[in-house]
Amino acid sequence: MTVTWLHFLLFFSAISASSSSIILPKPRFLGQFAHNSEGTQSVKSYRYEIRYYTQPLDHFSFRNLSSFEQRYLINKDHWTGPEQMGPIFFYCGNEGDIEWFAENTGFVWEIAPRFGAMVVFPEHRYYGKSMPFGSKDAAYKSADSLSYLTAEQALADFATLLTDLKQNMTAEDCPVVLFGGSYGGMLAAWMRLKYPHLVIGALSSSAPILQFENIVSDHSFYDIVSSDFKRESVSCFETIKKSWDAIEVEAGKVNGLEYLSSKFHLCRNLRNAEELSDWLSSAYSYLAMVDYPYATAFLMPLPANPIKEVCQKIDSLPSGANILDRILAGVSIYYNYTGNVPCFDLSDDPHGMGGWDWQACTEMVMPMSSSRDHSMFPTYDFDYISFEKGCLQQFGVKPRPKWITTEFGGHDFKTSLRAFGSNIIFSNGLLDPWSGGGVLENVSETIVALVTELGAHHIDLRASTDEDPEWLTEQRQVEINLIKGWISNYHLEKGGYFDLQGRMPF
Amino acid sequence: MTVTWLHFLLFFSAISASSSSIILPKPRFLGQFAHNSEGTQSVKSYRYEIRYYTQPLDHFSFRNLSSFEQRYLINKDHWTGPEQMGPIFFYCGNEGDIEWFAENTGFVWEIAPRFGAMVVFPEHRYYGKSMPFGSKDAAYKSADSLSYLTAEQALADFATLLTDLKQNMTAEDCPVVLFGGSYGGMLAAWMRLKYPHLVIGALSSSAPILQFENIVSDHSFYDIVSSDFKRESVSCFETIKKSWDAIEVEAGKVNGLEYLSSKFHLCRNLRNAEELSDWLSSAYSYLAMVDYPYATAFLMPLPANPIKEVCQKIDSLPSGANILDRILAGVSIYYNYTGNVPCFDLSDDPHGMGGWDWQACTEMVMPMSSSRDHSMFPTYDFDYISFEKGCLQQFGVKPRPKWITTEFGGHDFKTSLRAFGSNIIFSNGLLDPWSGGGVLENVSETIVALVTELGAHHIDLRASTDEDPEWLTEQRQVEINLIKGWISNYHLEKGGYFDLQGRMPF
Repeated sequence: MTVTWLHFLLFFSAISASSSSIILPKPRFLGQFAHNSEGTQSVKSYRYEIRYYTQPLDHFSFRNLSSFEQRYLINKDHWTGPEQMGPIFFYCGNEGDIEWFAENTGFVWEIAPRFGAMVVFPEHRYYGKSMPFGSKDAAYKSADSLSYLTAEQALADFATLLTDLKQNMTAEDCPVVLFGGSYGGMLAAWMRLKYPHLVIGALSSSAPILQFENIVSDHSFYDIVSSDFKRESVSCFETIKKSWDAIEVEAGKVNGLEYLSSKFHLCRNLRNAEELSDWLSSAYSYLAMVDYPYATAFLMPLPANPIKEVCQKIDSLPSGANILDRILAGVSIYYNYTGNVPCFDLSDDPHGMGGWDWQACTEMVMPMSSSRDHSMFPTYDFDYISFEKGCLQQFGVKPRPKWITTEFGGHDFKTSLRAFGSNIIFSNGLLDPWSGGGVLENVSETIVALVTELGAHHIDLRASTDEDPEWLTEQRQVEINLIKGWISNYHLEKGGYFDLQGRMPF
Repeated sequence: MTVTWLHFLLFFSAISASSSSIILPKPRFLGQFAHNSEGTQSVKSYRYEIRYYTQPLDHFSFRNLSSFEQRYLINKDHWTGPEQMGPIFFYCGNEGDIEWFAENTGFVWEIAPRFGAMVVFPEHRYYGKSMPFGSKDAAYKSADSLSYLTAEQALADFATLLTDLKQNMTAEDCPVVLFGGSYGGMLAAWMRLKYPHLVIGALSSSAPILQFENIVSDHSFYDIVSSDFKRESVSCFETIKKSWDAIEVEAGKVNGLEYLSSKFHLCRNLRNAEELSDWLSSAYSYLAMVDYPYATAFLMPLPANPIKEVCQKIDSLPSGANILDRILAGVSIYYNYTGNVPCFDLSDDPHGMGGWDWQACTEMVMPMSSSRDHSMFPTYDFDYISFEKGCLQQFGVKPRPKWITTEFGGHDFKTSLRAFGSNIIFSNGLLDPWSGGGVLENVSETIVALVTELGAHHIDLRASTDEDPEWLTEQRQVEINLIKGWISNYHLEKGGYFDLQGRMPF
């Protein structure tokens, strides 16, 4: 499996005259990992029914366009039903197969029975099996066919599905709580802001809703990745920081690219040094995101505290060892922890159109740079003109870099939301490079930030394990208590009483 | 000038086998009156600059569509500027020429200097001079060309215009207060709900945001019109209630339609009795909306308390007078108060496509019926199937009757907004038939309802006059105080201080 997840590709082409194609500096989310490997993953951890709902392709115009079938997963086993105003837990599907997200969002499944809650996992349009125009090929054919792949349309899908579901079950009075991680967390927060009449609150985990325009520093992402490495070992950080020049020097030699390709066990020869740098940068970035305190196979099999392991490898070679040997030893923890990978693919589908690529080239314009001082990555300054050019070249579409903040806000976030809105939890772990774009301070009494020093990317949404550190158990308990409070208040408002006595104590 | 303003055409065809064409039961707003008669209206009451802003035709997809020029009026004469965080008063343009709305929204112009506020009146897309595709003919050509005429797109126009205006004037920190009446009031409330990061509050006057689906009784509109007449005179109410049968009987006679056409001084012969009934119903409905306590020429020249005048005419004929003579005497107050109209047009453009007709056939589906018991109008039960059929026939478009409440809410309005949102004034006058669909109770401490027993359609937004009753002066003062509170709180939040000392006392 190759790795381009959640990683903002550095614009290496901009710093190298040898590069001919433009590599877009786009923020990458889960998408590429989020496909359900049918057949191989025959054992599902959670029970649900798979259903489809017919959605209009365009909610915001009345052109006579086609509709498409949106897939959603639903489980009503523990739902206490409309008479008791049993809650509905609604996960905002993000950029990938919804079954993958359902599988990796154990928290929702674990707490639903305690709340007597129904669970719904709707899939995001243009991902998984929720394809307009009948197939992925048709949906991804052109800018025209892709043009309805937007966050606003996805939220409207959720809103219409939810409205219809509730009506069909006479569950209009049942409170809905949203969940979401990463881009899904952004959708959850935005949906609470835009559709408060449909949902009573949102747990928005690791959602970089401020990573737009100049709201936060465009250095934050790579600075945090770098600091995650430095925190484990300064020498490890320094080795990586020096390695880019070493790679450039090596690549500049006669047969240098062949040498590098062979040294790093690549399945094909490098076309330029940037391919290697990008492949390494990806690994470091993903490592920072999944720097969990226990072993996971979330993206690929990894040990607990993987950055510590990588740095130990890098540092463990004898003094005087070649810098590239150190780098290879380190990155192998990420790309080949099992030791079973014969050679490394740089990318399984370099020219494939990913849905998230489209989104990053239209609305989700997240400027990212690499600073000279705090980053271990090659220096790079985000250049909007080149970015726009790349999007025009790749998709024939012009980004709207100011649209997200116009539509959803972000500037002066605290002032505008202090007197508006309620019931949102923004959870972030500070090891997560995306936390730099997250909401890290309480906005009001009911729009709160849960920040964990040692958390990585939306770890709180994962299923509990025996190895969970205390802070994680506590974080989840706080989340449960807040959600319980939302539901209780709602029941009080409606003149009812939310009875949890008969179920597990909180 | 013919009259089809703000009037929900009764579905007379449904109660008459003789009718061949389907008359759509659609709620009509100001649109038809809201055109600036260039040349004739050479003296403007208010000073402003006219500007244009380039808008994408579709904010919610990335199709490579055309853009259009949105007109807006702007006045900065009294603005205290960005340093003092001077407020921006932003009127949400509705379904007509923006200059007409500016002319008829004196309240905003009058209070702006006291607040040191800039005034902006943006025009609603597809109205006035803000035409996509270059001309009204092209914009109104087909369902395809009209398909971007929606409230969501209009709100997005306002949001992008506002964002750009503020950036260009480094006025990002300047608080924006929204104003709007009728459909414009709906837009103002919805914009405060959807774009709280851009605006700090909204005065939403006479906005029937609950007139959807089954949230309020579908009888409310005609019941209120009827009660306005009954309140002045029970015999007047009874005369009108009996007149429909009298018209039917007369129309059924040999040469009956010719007789009626001549009796009512129509410019052309009636095709059926329903044309006459509709023409009369319109008059009664508009009279209820503009039943102001002083003489106006808002829609057409009318005396103070016009319903009282109409009923006095109807009642003044000697006992034993023909019922149709009474009706004619009454309605002439509305259609010919000046006495200068030689004959009456039933409609100036019966087959013209009005923008509001399109909106009513797509999103703005407001079910309206006429009750047997409380209404003086012919009994009619809203029939969605026929309505949809009519829209398909007229525009080739299928309405989405549940979309507005999905997108903007409405069901269980108080519960969902009590813990969400702030700073909205819903003002309604109970004489106004649209008040039945308005918010008439406080939702929270900051989402408040101002209800005046004797107010008609958004009278509070009109310029002050020497004849204003005390309750109206008081109402406006309350609105000013609330707006002042919003701005003061905002300035406090931002660490500033809103100084009104140097200006007119409130």
